[in-house]
Amino acid sequence: MSNNAKTITIALDVMGGDAGPSVVLAGAEISRRRYPELRFILHGEADAVLPELEKYDRLKSESVFHPCEMSIAMDDKPSQALRHGRRVSGMWKALESVKSDEADVMISAGNTGALMAMSRFCLRMMPGIERPALAAVWPNLQGESIVLDVGATIGADAEALVDYALMGSAMARALFDLDRPRVGLLNIGVEEVKGLEEIRSAGARLREINLPGMDYRGFVEGDDLGRGGVDVVVTEGFTGNIALKSAEGTAKQVGAYLRDAMSRTLMAKIGYLFAKQAFNQLRVKMDPRKVNGAVFLGLNGVVIKSHGGTDAEGFASAIDVGHNMIRNGLQQKIANDLEETRFGEVEPTGDK
Amino acid sequence: MSNNAKTITIALDVMGGDAGPSVVLAGAEISRRRYPELRFILHGEADAVLPELEKYDRLKSESVFHPCEMSIAMDDKPSQALRHGRRVSGMWKALESVKSDEADVMISAGNTGALMAMSRFCLRMMPGIERPALAAVWPNLQGESIVLDVGATIGADAEALVDYALMGSAMARALFDLDRPRVGLLNIGVEEVKGLEEIRSAGARLREINLPGMDYRGFVEGDDLGRGGVDVVVTEGFTGNIALKSAEGTAKQVGAYLRDAMSRTLMAKIGYLFAKQAFNQLRVKMDPRKVNGAVFLGLNGVVIKSHGGTDAEGFASAIDVGHNMIRNGLQQKIANDLEETRFGEVEPTGDK
Repeated sequence: MSNNAKTITIALDVMGGDAGPSVVLAGAEISRRRYPELRFILHGEADAVLPELEKYDRLKSESVFHPCEMSIAMDDKPSQALRHGRRVSGMWKALESVKSDEADVMISAGNTGALMAMSRFCLRMMPGIERPALAAVWPNLQGESIVLDVGATIGADAEALVDYALMGSAMARALFDLDRPRVGLLNIGVEEVKGLEEIRSAGARLREINLPGMDYRGFVEGDDLGRGGVDVVVTEGFTGNIALKSAEGTAKQVGAYLRDAMSRTLMAKIGYLFAKQAFNQLRVKMDPRKVNGAVFLGLNGVVIKSHGGTDAEGFASAIDVGHNMIRNGLQQKIANDLEETRFGEVEPTGDK
Repeated sequence: MSNNAKTITIALDVMGGDAGPSVVLAGAEISRRRYPELRFILHGEADAVLPELEKYDRLKSESVFHPCEMSIAMDDKPSQALRHGRRVSGMWKALESVKSDEADVMISAGNTGALMAMSRFCLRMMPGIERPALAAVWPNLQGESIVLDVGATIGADAEALVDYALMGSAMARALFDLDRPRVGLLNIGVEEVKGLEEIRSAGARLREINLPGMDYRGFVEGDDLGRGGVDVVVTEGFTGNIALKSAEGTAKQVGAYLRDAMSRTLMAKIGYLFAKQAFNQLRVKMDPRKVNGAVFLGLNGVVIKSHGGTDAEGFASAIDVGHNMIRNGLQQKIANDLEETRFGEVEPTGDK
């Protein structure tokens, strides 16, 4: 519920994440200072949330707190979470805030599988969308791209990949302010002959529908993720998750090599001191907290997943993503695109 | 054909790769100096190979040259390559050198799909192995691991994944001199409940067979590739290829960030000069040429794929891998493992 045109209301699963309230509330405080138009609905267990909330006068006065009975554990299976946490957990109740239009977006650093299961159950999918996709913002040498699905579901077929392309390009228009984002399908070769049948079919279909709001550029490969060149990279969730974590792991690995190299000799240490500012800039550039906040696309409502292990700064980034998505009308953009494509169902055509 | 116990004979597809003879022969020359026991059988078109070979007296005198009629192009489809290049191309003839036991190993920087198709056709699979796997050596924070399949085939089922684990651990024993390499299955969650059915089945089967030469450690995730912790990472080829290229792309991306940061300010430039040696060590550590040379496993013969765009130093690394594989009896190790596991066929069991 927005009291004036500018207010954006965010429902938070305050108990979610490795640290829970201490990180979530500190993150909300950072975002509140950045965007005064933000308001929060806080869902969590009173014992854990209220003492922590006392630290932030302004946040407290501008937020609504809804106590809940229980919380979803980070290692609960999705089915367990649904069975025990439906209607009573903070995660569920935060989703209900979006469903009832009290909030514009829901953010959780909790259990990903549980969040996805509950989101589908509580908010339901947008008409015509079969499965949600988790879309991450991926930094590359030319800027940033949106990569989806990074692990919401596994085994996407051609139709699902086409949906991902539509939703991803809507998100790119909302987040990067582009008219016609370039979209690529992740594959293991750029020639049309290579790769899996569903990817070829999706590619053929995307060429065929040739949407005004999407510039389909064909196949891209794993190394294009870091190189850049397209604004949206579409892939099945298992592969997308492996690619994302493989890249994160490599970035950490190179960072560790670099720290090691810079501390080995006296000359290197002196060099490090001179170049310290440059190294700091590099650290900021590679800070994984900056790109925290993946968006579940395809639901009737915006749901954002923060890394469970992030800190306040990282959680604030996830809130920023939510803020941007609402400010730029993500859901409406997706709905428009779907309507434009769907004279009947999308039927994946065969190869070529 | 080994004239004495130590000689290792390598059949080269001299026309393969972006540069062909100039890189392949220069690479062979580097390896020959490193390992005097190497002998080469050179397959290629006379016009292209012989003038280049004139540059290397010793290599020329210690090698056998077999002229061929034609070469496989880097962009030929595998079916085209087989149709036109079977029996007549340098790639095929180099494989025949292995088949006839003239050579111990075949190395090509040519078209991957063609090389795989021709290898299967010419050498055939080992008994009981259905599909080849391409195994890459992957540097990580604790050393190196073997990752397979990085793109030989797509859509591995549980049985194929078990085969990959067997072959990968045999390769780890040959290459890293380990008694019981630690093996992990790449998945998108470490809990037994997650991931694809075939990965779960393969995991259950690997626990069950509990081989003396393999220490199955369960699931690993994408970020474990850079972190290390297991010696062999097993995955289906599509995902493995995306993971490999995603990591390569990220390493390049971070390298580019670093170069950029070090050239921005005078202080950074001064720091760079002091730390130059450290940066050089880092460059050597991250040099992709050092880990060039992926091994096709499961064939009746050792076939090594070099990057098409590598230089002489990189091609020499691929030859080194071949040298190590033969010196350490890779094929025999794989054959022993297969025999040990196969009382009848491997039947993937269900989950749990």
